[in-house]
Amino acid sequence: MKIELTKNTFYKIKEHKLFQNIVIFVIILSAFLVGASTFEISDSLISIFKIMDLLITLFFIFEIVIRYIAEPSKKDFFKNGWNIFDTIIVLVSVIPVGPDSSILLLRLMRIFRVLRLISAVPELKELIEALLQSIKRVFYVSLLLFIILYIYASFGSILFSEDDPERWKDLGISMITLVQVLTLSSWEQVMLPIQKIYWWSWIYFYSFVAIGSITILNLIIAVLVDVITNQKK
Amino acid sequence: MKIELTKNTFYKIKEHKLFQNIVIFVIILSAFLVGASTFEISDSLISIFKIMDLLITLFFIFEIVIRYIAEPSKKDFFKNGWNIFDTIIVLVSVIPVGPDSSILLLRLMRIFRVLRLISAVPELKELIEALLQSIKRVFYVSLLLFIILYIYASFGSILFSEDDPERWKDLGISMITLVQVLTLSSWEQVMLPIQKIYWWSWIYFYSFVAIGSITILNLIIAVLVDVITNQKK
Amino acid sequence: MKIELTKNTFYKIKEHKLFQNIVIFVIILSAFLVGASTFEISDSLISIFKIMDLLITLFFIFEIVIRYIAEPSKKDFFKNGWNIFDTIIVLVSVIPVGPDSSILLLRLMRIFRVLRLISAVPELKELIEALLQSIKRVFYVSLLLFIILYIYASFGSILFSEDDPERWKDLGISMITLVQVLTLSSWEQVMLPIQKIYWWSWIYFYSFVAIGSITILNLIIAVLVDVITNQKK
Amino acid sequence: MKIELTKNTFYKIKEHKLFQNIVIFVIILSAFLVGASTFEISDSLISIFKIMDLLITLFFIFEIVIRYIAEPSKKDFFKNGWNIFDTIIVLVSVIPVGPDSSILLLRLMRIFRVLRLISAVPELKELIEALLQSIKRVFYVSLLLFIILYIYASFGSILFSEDDPERWKDLGISMITLVQVLTLSSWEQVMLPIQKIYWWSWIYFYSFVAIGSITILNLIIAVLVDVITNQKK
Repeated sequence: MKIELTKNTFYKIKEHKLFQNIVIFVIILSAFLVGASTFEISDSLISIFKIMDLLITLFFIFEIVIRYIAEPSKKDFFKNGWNIFDTIIVLVSVIPVGPDSSILLLRLMRIFRVLRLISAVPELKELIEALLQSIKRVFYVSLLLFIILYIYASFGSILFSEDDPERWKDLGISMITLVQVLTLSSWEQVMLPIQKIYWWSWIYFYSFVAIGSITILNLIIAVLVDVITNQKK
Repeated sequence: MKIELTKNTFYKIKEHKLFQNIVIFVIILSAFLVGASTFEISDSLISIFKIMDLLITLFFIFEIVIRYIAEPSKKDFFKNGWNIFDTIIVLVSVIPVGPDSSILLLRLMRIFRVLRLISAVPELKELIEALLQSIKRVFYVSLLLFIILYIYASFGSILFSEDDPERWKDLGISMITLVQVLTLSSWEQVMLPIQKIYWWSWIYFYSFVAIGSITILNLIIAVLVDVITNQKK
Repeated sequence: MKIELTKNTFYKIKEHKLFQNIVIFVIILSAFLVGASTFEISDSLISIFKIMDLLITLFFIFEIVIRYIAEPSKKDFFKNGWNIFDTIIVLVSVIPVGPDSSILLLRLMRIFRVLRLISAVPELKELIEALLQSIKRVFYVSLLLFIILYIYASFGSILFSEDDPERWKDLGISMITLVQVLTLSSWEQVMLPIQKIYWWSWIYFYSFVAIGSITILNLIIAVLVDVITNQKK
Repeated sequence: MKIELTKNTFYKIKEHKLFQNIVIFVIILSAFLVGASTFEISDSLISIFKIMDLLITLFFIFEIVIRYIAEPSKKDFFKNGWNIFDTIIVLVSVIPVGPDSSILLLRLMRIFRVLRLISAVPELKELIEALLQSIKRVFYVSLLLFIILYIYASFGSILFSEDDPERWKDLGISMITLVQVLTLSSWEQVMLPIQKIYWWSWIYFYSFVAIGSITILNLIIAVLVDVITNQKK
């Protein structure tokens, strides 16, 4: 009976608007610390930051525990993707990093905490859930895009590797070059030196840009149709 | 009775097509003055511009007063967002700027008058009202985009700050650099120097571009679905 | 009776698939001549081109005349926008250019003939007609975009004209600079020099890019909704 | 009777999930070989690659033969576009290349095998089929885009060929330059040198960008409406 009451109390805490706002505030504070530490700061500030970081870590553990206790059915807690998401992020920033691990890794781990803002704000949660619904289509169109990229990069590295080795030396470098072409970012600087050597190279580049763009357009339309169809249901 | 008649007269003036066209003409004239004064102009023209500017200011005050008097219920006048919008713009360009305030500020204030064209042309008013309807969604997707930017900028400034300080020195500079990457504007010039040092850096950049683009795509689709849904009602 | 028969004959010619294909062929030939004359060509070819050009001009006049005769009601001929379009294009390339007018102008006039391909191919005609349906919306969003551009260009030329005169000297040059920023083409090269002087300049550029992009997005959505609505009818 | 059984067996093999996965695996292996051979590799690896390449070629022939035998009606086999697609790709990489043909051509032919991944994965097949449905519209809008490009390139090469020959020398080079402008990739670098000579050149460039963008937008919308309409059926 006493336990039941406690669970109820925890549930009330968890659902309380004030508690939720405190959580959001602490996440933002944590994000602020991560950002501020990239600037040049005085030593005294660094020690204050270290203490605040410890307090934030403790608060995050405390919050997860409250949410876990408040859960009516313990088994269901980890069936909710967002609970797993939050728990992993908190665990990752608590795990005892060995004495020989770099401070760099520790700092990088802290950054993931900012992601918790997504699970703390319901509107952002909805946005991500909507995005995940069309993930399957996005995957297959990305695969198609990768095949197109792979084929063109193979052609490119075989045909142009000797003429412009910095951009076409091997398949890896050619793919990086072609991603630049696909994003249309100063892509003429890639084409023009090749165009001077092979007059037909514009066919290679234009067909790549055209096929790549149509595939990306297909991606956009597929996602759009998915979203509209889901909206109607 | 007399007041009632006057109010009626003012209402007729306000609603008259000619009056509305004069208002639009004066706004365009005011925009022209602002633009013309950025070119090198003779002193005599400057003094003519000053007089015209004074007349325009007087006309704008006169117009707001007419619209206020014409309003049947005075309380409702400031419930209309466009009335508040116009009044603020006019007030801002009238407020007595102290003798020690720069002439620069005064010139900048004048520019806002051009915005009045939006409230004077009904079609533009409708456009803005349609845009405002999806403002809530735009806000949350922008927030998500900001979180993504913040996380990547934190990683970037921790990992690359020593290799390319001009672009990654601290969180602020890293965010400016990443906005450039997000707009795909010569972004390969940001990536290639880093790519030469860390072979894995393409994962950082490509994942950022992919996640950022999908979020922006989500924004576009959200607004589109909103507009179509509203259209159907 | 005889005239009636003739008219009928002309109508049959006009509607005949072969005649329409010949017209398309002659337009393409005309386009080819225009294009070929931009390359360095021998003198003998130039004289051949001149003769062909004359023949094409005669054919175009001949074709318009046939279409005019074939028209049952002469008054309706110029009610059809495409007939006016074709007639103007043909007239423009026939009008006696005075002896003192440059050969350059004559060459430029010839280019417009290529446009006749649009009126000769029914599918292209439909495309243009579909585009024209949403012209009103496009106009008002373009106007809004122009107002935004004008306001930002005014601010830019007042604030930055002394720091980077090549890009911000006056309103005209500032607008050209801002169009570049709006198309996101190497826009960081415009921002970074200013950003070094005024730390707040990113607010100016980012707000411009954001507001501009949202307005263009609005344009796309407006046209899209228009087209879908028309499609349903 | 015996043949019938055999055919049935082949059909079972062809439809078996394991067989299909082996096919996908071999295609990926083949793609890997193509990619790996662009890197600098040791001589021993090259000979291993040659043997693997031979085995893959044999497997592909073997697979096509199985699929052909498994087909109930031989005549229908080549009515399926995907069967033709696969057969051509396999044939192209088997055809006896004469002794005087370069090894380069042989390597290029191998790349096309990667395309077989599209016909081997049903989800990718569907994507391509969806894309093909709107091919007719895409063709006509591309034609319109080409006409616009042709007209502007003619103007450009006549007007600017002497001022900036590297970009506007003849129609061909002008078209390549204008494609760059159309993709908005550093297009201000094309415009600014011309703008310094002719103050009106911004009209040429802006009208081209505006008309080109609207045409591309039309393309996107046309495809989108097509897809949505098909989806509803």
